[in-house]
Amino acid sequence: MRKHITGFSNPTVKYLRSLRDKKHRKRAGQFLVEGLRLLEDARASGRLPQTLVMAEGREHPLLERLEAEVVAAGGDVIATTPDILSKITGKENAQAVAGVFDEWDTRLAALDRSAAPIWLAAQALRDPGNLGTMLRTCDAVGAGGLILIDDCADPFSAEAVRASMGAVFTVGLAQARWEDFLGWLRAGDGQLVAASLRDAVPYRGAAYAAPCFILVGNESQGLPEDYELACDLRVTMPMKGRADSLNAAVAGAVLAYEVLAALGD
Amino acid sequence: MRKHITGFSNPTVKYLRSLRDKKHRKRAGQFLVEGLRLLEDARASGRLPQTLVMAEGREHPLLERLEAEVVAAGGDVIATTPDILSKITGKENAQAVAGVFDEWDTRLAALDRSAAPIWLAAQALRDPGNLGTMLRTCDAVGAGGLILIDDCADPFSAEAVRASMGAVFTVGLAQARWEDFLGWLRAGDGQLVAASLRDAVPYRGAAYAAPCFILVGNESQGLPEDYELACDLRVTMPMKGRADSLNAAVAGAVLAYEVLAALGD
Repeated sequence: MRKHITGFSNPTVKYLRSLRDKKHRKRAGQFLVEGLRLLEDARASGRLPQTLVMAEGREHPLLERLEAEVVAAGGDVIATTPDILSKITGKENAQAVAGVFDEWDTRLAALDRSAAPIWLAAQALRDPGNLGTMLRTCDAVGAGGLILIDDCADPFSAEAVRASMGAVFTVGLAQARWEDFLGWLRAGDGQLVAASLRDAVPYRGAAYAAPCFILVGNESQGLPEDYELACDLRVTMPMKGRADSLNAAVAGAVLAYEVLAALGD
Repeated sequence: MRKHITGFSNPTVKYLRSLRDKKHRKRAGQFLVEGLRLLEDARASGRLPQTLVMAEGREHPLLERLEAEVVAAGGDVIATTPDILSKITGKENAQAVAGVFDEWDTRLAALDRSAAPIWLAAQALRDPGNLGTMLRTCDAVGAGGLILIDDCADPFSAEAVRASMGAVFTVGLAQARWEDFLGWLRAGDGQLVAASLRDAVPYRGAAYAAPCFILVGNESQGLPEDYELACDLRVTMPMKGRADSLNAAVAGAVLAYEVLAALGD
């Protein structure tokens, strides 16, 4: 059932390689996931790749099972050389396998806010590592998911997927402009909480309420003032040093664990 | 007072460029800091570069002040082209300025454990972004500093310095093998706390005591079992999802804020 590819100039190789680029991912509606571990996380979450790309001669029982499931689901399996897999992923030491997934629906309408007491939201988050780390934190605190507001890094980039440690497959994910997010939020229950220095109360012991949406801002600029003012609660964390802010993913996590404790672990 | 460099093959350009490489940094005992903001952070912390490298035609009042102080302190100022500065830093859009600093003493003996109630420690931390983020967290919680145990990323790499947002200049920093760290720790006061799943108590309400040393492990492997067992306290954070761990810098920060609250903010 395997299709063998041995030529660097094969159009499929070219296509797979193009998925490293955000523009091409958006056009194709697909993204590439590298490594057996992440592919196993995806499988455990009920997501199988449309196409599995394997380096020949790198056998593994889990890989065999994955291949069988992909074939059974009607997907394609491509066997190729380690060099071509390296070319596709852009890594010198390529993983033994990569998978192509269809991107999924990331509209707000696809989220069920009653599904979890905590949600994370990030505005103009630019670093894919921070984005993936926030997805991972969502998984850890049992959050419903991450809502990406305005222009954020691509959650389907290799770096974000890797930093998420597979959480991209398990937690909710939505992308929206601020106005649309606010409209969606106000159409139902939901407390919007910002980490802020403006007119804020201490983050410990603040009156958190479920479903609680924890909003963090851009890495350099923080949140725009009007976004902060639209929040139901502004909380501040102690800043004992010279700086007045934390890494965005760290701030989100410290708040998320506080909210988790407040709402009854 | 400025020395002008216009040739790409100038030996000084070659030397400065070599500082992007860890091996060369270690040999030279110097590192390169990019951008006026970080250089201003350094200056505010009482650290001036030995050499300031500026792109000609990119004037700024803060840059003028910095140049004057570097000259007054006996340092060198090099004026060059934006292209050469790009070559030195390896960035396409180079910052207007970079500075060369002497690395400083990072032996444990240089730390004063009575200076702060909280310290962070990381073992085999490989990601320079995580390392810099932990330095930034140290600044925020008023920690004495970060102790890097065994083979960690280089705190003087451009990525770590950038992620620290200048905290590398203000918080303590030490590098040690585990045995040496443990010997130093046990020669004085200090509670060693690990985030752990083994025989651990809930992280909230645990019996933290100052000076409290919060230890996090390698991104993939966590802490070796014998390291965990050598700790005075093992604490665990709720993990409500599929995964059993947080990003290392996130785990360190959630614990650090808990310890800060416990020890009296």
